[in-house]
Amino acid sequence: MNLKERLQAALEEDIGSGDVTSQALIPINEVSRAVLLAKAEGVLAGLPMAMEVFRLLDPQVKTFNLREEGGRLEKGLVIGRLEARTRAILAGERTALNLLQRLSGVATLTARLCAKLEGTRARLLDTRKTTPLWRDLEKYAVRIGGGRNHRLGLYDMILIKDNHIAAAGGIRPALERARAYARPSLAMEIEVKTIPELEEALAAGADWIMLDNMSPEVMRRAVERTAGRAVLEASGGINEETIAAVAATGVDCISVGALTHSIAALDISLEIEENNPTISAERADQTSGG
Amino acid sequence: MNLKERLQAALEEDIGSGDVTSQALIPINEVSRAVLLAKAEGVLAGLPMAMEVFRLLDPQVKTFNLREEGGRLEKGLVIGRLEARTRAILAGERTALNLLQRLSGVATLTARLCAKLEGTRARLLDTRKTTPLWRDLEKYAVRIGGGRNHRLGLYDMILIKDNHIAAAGGIRPALERARAYARPSLAMEIEVKTIPELEEALAAGADWIMLDNMSPEVMRRAVERTAGRAVLEASGGINEETIAAVAATGVDCISVGALTHSIAALDISLEIEENNPTISAERADQTSGG
Amino acid sequence: MNLKERLQAALEEDIGSGDVTSQALIPINEVSRAVLLAKAEGVLAGLPMAMEVFRLLDPQVKTFNLREEGGRLEKGLVIGRLEARTRAILAGERTALNLLQRLSGVATLTARLCAKLEGTRARLLDTRKTTPLWRDLEKYAVRIGGGRNHRLGLYDMILIKDNHIAAAGGIRPALERARAYARPSLAMEIEVKTIPELEEALAAGADWIMLDNMSPEVMRRAVERTAGRAVLEASGGINEETIAAVAATGVDCISVGALTHSIAALDISLEIEENNPTISAERADQTSGG
Amino acid sequence: MNLKERLQAALEEDIGSGDVTSQALIPINEVSRAVLLAKAEGVLAGLPMAMEVFRLLDPQVKTFNLREEGGRLEKGLVIGRLEARTRAILAGERTALNLLQRLSGVATLTARLCAKLEGTRARLLDTRKTTPLWRDLEKYAVRIGGGRNHRLGLYDMILIKDNHIAAAGGIRPALERARAYARPSLAMEIEVKTIPELEEALAAGADWIMLDNMSPEVMRRAVERTAGRAVLEASGGINEETIAAVAATGVDCISVGALTHSIAALDISLEIEENNPTISAERADQTSGG
Amino acid sequence: MNLKERLQAALEEDIGSGDVTSQALIPINEVSRAVLLAKAEGVLAGLPMAMEVFRLLDPQVKTFNLREEGGRLEKGLVIGRLEARTRAILAGERTALNLLQRLSGVATLTARLCAKLEGTRARLLDTRKTTPLWRDLEKYAVRIGGGRNHRLGLYDMILIKDNHIAAAGGIRPALERARAYARPSLAMEIEVKTIPELEEALAAGADWIMLDNMSPEVMRRAVERTAGRAVLEASGGINEETIAAVAATGVDCISVGALTHSIAALDISLEIEENNPTISAERADQTSGG
Amino acid sequence: MNLKERLQAALEEDIGSGDVTSQALIPINEVSRAVLLAKAEGVLAGLPMAMEVFRLLDPQVKTFNLREEGGRLEKGLVIGRLEARTRAILAGERTALNLLQRLSGVATLTARLCAKLEGTRARLLDTRKTTPLWRDLEKYAVRIGGGRNHRLGLYDMILIKDNHIAAAGGIRPALERARAYARPSLAMEIEVKTIPELEEALAAGADWIMLDNMSPEVMRRAVERTAGRAVLEASGGINEETIAAVAATGVDCISVGALTHSIAALDISLEIEENNPTISAERADQTSGG
Repeated sequence: MNLKERLQAALEEDIGSGDVTSQALIPINEVSRAVLLAKAEGVLAGLPMAMEVFRLLDPQVKTFNLREEGGRLEKGLVIGRLEARTRAILAGERTALNLLQRLSGVATLTARLCAKLEGTRARLLDTRKTTPLWRDLEKYAVRIGGGRNHRLGLYDMILIKDNHIAAAGGIRPALERARAYARPSLAMEIEVKTIPELEEALAAGADWIMLDNMSPEVMRRAVERTAGRAVLEASGGINEETIAAVAATGVDCISVGALTHSIAALDISLEIEENNPTISAERADQTSGG
Repeated sequence: MNLKERLQAALEEDIGSGDVTSQALIPINEVSRAVLLAKAEGVLAGLPMAMEVFRLLDPQVKTFNLREEGGRLEKGLVIGRLEARTRAILAGERTALNLLQRLSGVATLTARLCAKLEGTRARLLDTRKTTPLWRDLEKYAVRIGGGRNHRLGLYDMILIKDNHIAAAGGIRPALERARAYARPSLAMEIEVKTIPELEEALAAGADWIMLDNMSPEVMRRAVERTAGRAVLEASGGINEETIAAVAATGVDCISVGALTHSIAALDISLEIEENNPTISAERADQTSGG
Repeated sequence: MNLKERLQAALEEDIGSGDVTSQALIPINEVSRAVLLAKAEGVLAGLPMAMEVFRLLDPQVKTFNLREEGGRLEKGLVIGRLEARTRAILAGERTALNLLQRLSGVATLTARLCAKLEGTRARLLDTRKTTPLWRDLEKYAVRIGGGRNHRLGLYDMILIKDNHIAAAGGIRPALERARAYARPSLAMEIEVKTIPELEEALAAGADWIMLDNMSPEVMRRAVERTAGRAVLEASGGINEETIAAVAATGVDCISVGALTHSIAALDISLEIEENNPTISAERADQTSGG
Repeated sequence: MNLKERLQAALEEDIGSGDVTSQALIPINEVSRAVLLAKAEGVLAGLPMAMEVFRLLDPQVKTFNLREEGGRLEKGLVIGRLEARTRAILAGERTALNLLQRLSGVATLTARLCAKLEGTRARLLDTRKTTPLWRDLEKYAVRIGGGRNHRLGLYDMILIKDNHIAAAGGIRPALERARAYARPSLAMEIEVKTIPELEEALAAGADWIMLDNMSPEVMRRAVERTAGRAVLEASGGINEETIAAVAATGVDCISVGALTHSIAALDISLEIEENNPTISAERADQTSGG
Repeated sequence: MNLKERLQAALEEDIGSGDVTSQALIPINEVSRAVLLAKAEGVLAGLPMAMEVFRLLDPQVKTFNLREEGGRLEKGLVIGRLEARTRAILAGERTALNLLQRLSGVATLTARLCAKLEGTRARLLDTRKTTPLWRDLEKYAVRIGGGRNHRLGLYDMILIKDNHIAAAGGIRPALERARAYARPSLAMEIEVKTIPELEEALAAGADWIMLDNMSPEVMRRAVERTAGRAVLEASGGINEETIAAVAATGVDCISVGALTHSIAALDISLEIEENNPTISAERADQTSGG
Repeated sequence: MNLKERLQAALEEDIGSGDVTSQALIPINEVSRAVLLAKAEGVLAGLPMAMEVFRLLDPQVKTFNLREEGGRLEKGLVIGRLEARTRAILAGERTALNLLQRLSGVATLTARLCAKLEGTRARLLDTRKTTPLWRDLEKYAVRIGGGRNHRLGLYDMILIKDNHIAAAGGIRPALERARAYARPSLAMEIEVKTIPELEEALAAGADWIMLDNMSPEVMRRAVERTAGRAVLEASGGINEETIAAVAATGVDCISVGALTHSIAALDISLEIEENNPTISAERADQTSGG
């Protein structure tokens, strides 16, 4: 499903057979102007998708994105403005906010962790621990927040973990068998848990190695032994408290599952500013003949 | 989209054109036994759905649910066991865990908040602040955790908020117009922000009233004034710290957006116990003639 | 499937790989003006949906709805007018009429039965005996004809029938168990067949009771015994001949399956008035550059 | 959409987010035996499709079709029997009956009209005036009732009507242009309203001619003039009262829109005979390990 | 799936989660003008579909079809021109060309074979040996190239082959049973392999007969024996070398599987002529407010 | 769309509303045994997919794959055998063969070209010039034939061509900008047309370079200059006649569009061997109770 189809499905999930409250109480042709308002500090992500939600409900919506993706938010800041049929605004409000708050939550956490990496060579990576059906948007929010994306899924990269190594009979045979299998465009990484495993992987020519659940001290030794022969990625239980120490070991990248597995919504609300703004006149014209 | 279609789509999101690592390294017919293992305390929710993920990848999977939905988890507890093709286990692992960890996270928080309501008349309700496309499962997890579901969407109940009241010209006309519109099966609630609004709603015969963002003291007065004439629901910014005080006011129910808008994954992992258990023999038989 | 998808699917059902007659004989760019014409008395329902059918085939169609939904029709009355590519008009004609005739048939019968309820307190309700995949539109036509909708499906209301009562072990335990299960927004009705059952239901606090297949005399007694403590709904085999007598018993609502289970198409036809009206010029302009 | 997808969609239309009554009151593993029971005279059509509805809800259902499609029904006759989870039976009941009652209604009317054609050469044909999305099943029911299918849609046959003749500049050029266009497998029919038009069509070599809205006397003359050179089809406003007179004119076939445009449901009901029949034991076994 | 859905799916097949090269290197708002250029001789087919591919990626694309479908191409000829966002052009290029080259390949071969039939009564027919999911377009390309379409699929015509004849117990019973089954609009053809079979088919009243894998000499005799009583179709292994001899036998039509089973792409390329043509200005305006 | 959905859609394309010939002439329960038979030399690819086609039509089919994917075929060789309902065999025959013949055609050509590379370091690569909607299977057939897959689509690799270089302002800035953009798992290749461009790419650190439309002599020089610092890929107009000379230059890989843009079907047929084999008995049993 492409994004538009998922937004449509999300709307159907919320609206179902119809917004009965608006049907009872809001005039069908009423038009309003509304704003999206930040109610907390953070980093904005997902505004174009949120606006698209309203466009699906009212193709004649006028939207104004007043802050760019990645922009800093503070309490009270107006992020965007839209003019649309009031019923469309109210029907789309929850779905748009559910999306916007989560994506901004991801971008906000990502930015906070990236700040802790400044001055080190380490880059922040996400993982596959994303919300099912929304991985593309969550990985987008990571990028907006300043992070980089690790593999998109099981399909775009070979990542050899302990089960694969066991099945192949060791690190070297695993790497060899994978190279024989892979088409030339396929990147390859292998996971190691100890320094001897790291050395085995280096000896077998690995050029991207994941250091799984190592302590900072062991990672530091891993960096020394590797001496630039391979990209080193720290992984496993790294969080806001420990990331700076990990980065200080000299690893090239750090992957953090919490970026997407535990998303805290950033508080953003929608407020209706005014009913029947001037835009309604031109709408009336357009619909008269159709 | 029904649940099976969404699980299928979630698998396609992760697997795409194929799990290249397993294709390179795991024998196509290898069968393994794996366990799902709690790595933290909490409440289990989503195990049948997680198992269904594996069934979509290997219709011959054998699954054993060792803990019931709603059961208490502690670190190291084995939740379930499955026997399937190793490739199916590895391909479904992330999607199954992404789902199971989130739903158990919802149930865990719900149970924690419910515990704070014990001894009061208040019941815990969820909101529409759910992850798009997963509302049904998240509301299911709320029930598993001991909460009750508020409306499912915009379609199954009339909930009159400030914009609707403004459009109708007041609380009484809003209630009257909604009653004239509604089919008999449609429940109706109205939001009030002050005691005078509450009294207006009571006078107009409202039987379900949302107290929006009131302080506990004002809520207490609202409970007194209402004197059982309507169901009272506390709503707005209530969290783990404040919920007990809110419940002590005597309201009938309390809705908490954070149950689903900020989901912390509960740590659960999958471990492969053994390759090629005895089950593989019978499989070989079955596939020989087909 | 939303309405647009169903209309599209309906068009594909009729048009399949193409309207071979028009392809052979109607110039591709020819534009015509056509009218929708009532050929019998009745109540109009479904005109916007019928027009939407043509819009799906020719996005540049101009449509003019000359009668409002719910308006009275008589033989010879022009209901609407459209200008579109002739091929689109001919390709959409049958699908549009199949829909419009059925929905107007539903509205017409509904209005006829509603007229028989005038002066009584009884309101006319529909049932779930609708054409599969078209329930929303048929229930819409019932509303247009002046009726009210009973539950939309199995999901939006609890309706306890004999099988459920038997499973629960009686009327009171059924009501209690259902209340324990239900979220607060869920309406609840119970079916009774006799006066003793009615009294049991009233004693257990039922507030909406279906009188199933009772004679008018028994219903009258039910109304007396209930004395306003619950909403009473008459149901079962009620038709055009018997409905007035049922209404005279004092029940609150009457549900009639025949509103939708046996739909008689209202005769409406489409006639092409004129080929190549002036509109064609502006179309030529628009398509010249694309 | 194939049939299974439509049945699935029809179930979703009725069940939506779940059958709340059964969820509250029917044990999840309870199994029942139910019968489908005729409550009126008629002709059976749609039983396999009705049974398929239950299979979609409970793949382990056991179904027994006790009457064949096309069989005569009378009040009280048991048509079929099924054993399934009680919840599946109750969830599928309405959708299955909505389908079965309508299709049997079509077959019943078709059989009644066919009986009036006995002893004549005329065969009964249906039209495209079918319920959108269910044409295939309704045309199936026509066949079951003893009728034949006219064209399936706009795609499988050329049928030249007045608008096409006007566009082509006459009957002969219309036939010629259509023949030049058509691939060899495409059947071709032309509509005429008068005897002179008929003669024009015969002269131009038409081999299938629709006599549109002619009186029986004119039709009789048409039959004489044609003298077997073409197939003649009577069409337009023919009903149960007039069809015998039309058939007596000697036409080859008679198409009747009312077969499908005004479908009267045949009364058929579902009754639960017994809960937890012996079948439930083996089910329990099967599910224990899966 | 309709054409637009298949084109969309084809784009998704190629673009997947995004054109990473353009995302990295092409400005998002850059607009370009490109041409479609023939690089070999042939017959054009598929240009509107190719242009539609770009429209799906950029609804504001301007397209100019400079050659008509069926037009002769020679090396260096500009077929069409388009102005669109550069990213849309690059993302659609391969899908559009893959389609356009194949369809033009079909039309080119068809035209070459048709040329060999000039001066004979034989018409060239295609078969069902088409690329799965693209039959409609390939049969369209056959028409564009001057051929005619044989049956579209298994559904629109009865074609009785040896297995069917064996099942029915002979040619005559097969024809009789098929006639008894078929609705009037269904064309019917029967396959024969020898002159005696042909005579049996003629005697049983067949009016369309396929001569399967006969030599030209036998076909010639078949034409003589038939003497116009039925349409004769030559079929089986006919190619560019043998088709003239087959046509010379006097058969009415010749079906050639190679038209679509072995499609040679006609070399057509896309070249970007200019970036940021004047069109970009007006785009900027349009997007400023949306 | 996954493979099963596409096979299903392909069947629907061919079967539509039903195989009218079989419906008329083949008993519904008849079971047959059929073989797939090579009628020409080549390499087998697509047999499991072809068998899957029959499984979709008859879930009880028994299939026997007698040759492995990649196996050599010669005229008269039996490739596989299946037992299924005769109607299912006839309905699936064309779709299965259309797929099997094309995929075997791709594998056959691939194997023929691979043979010409023996003794050189060059590996054969495919391109994105595949049939829309069937890229995965055609790339699979390339692998079966001994080739390797180039990128799967626009999404899984950066391939910088002339338009991208122009947009970026040169080879070095293009590579730098792409590196800054790309996530770590993304492979990167750049196209050069001349030796100076090659040297610029090497100087900028490119590690995969496409030599576009170079003559073998220039390629040879490119190989010398590169001296192993990057992977070199020959591309552009290479065919069966020229590929050996290209390989002799010492390039690492050679991509050939004709592998998939001009697919010649390999002649394979289906023959019914026997009706009602013994298998039919057990089928009858199974269906008796369902």
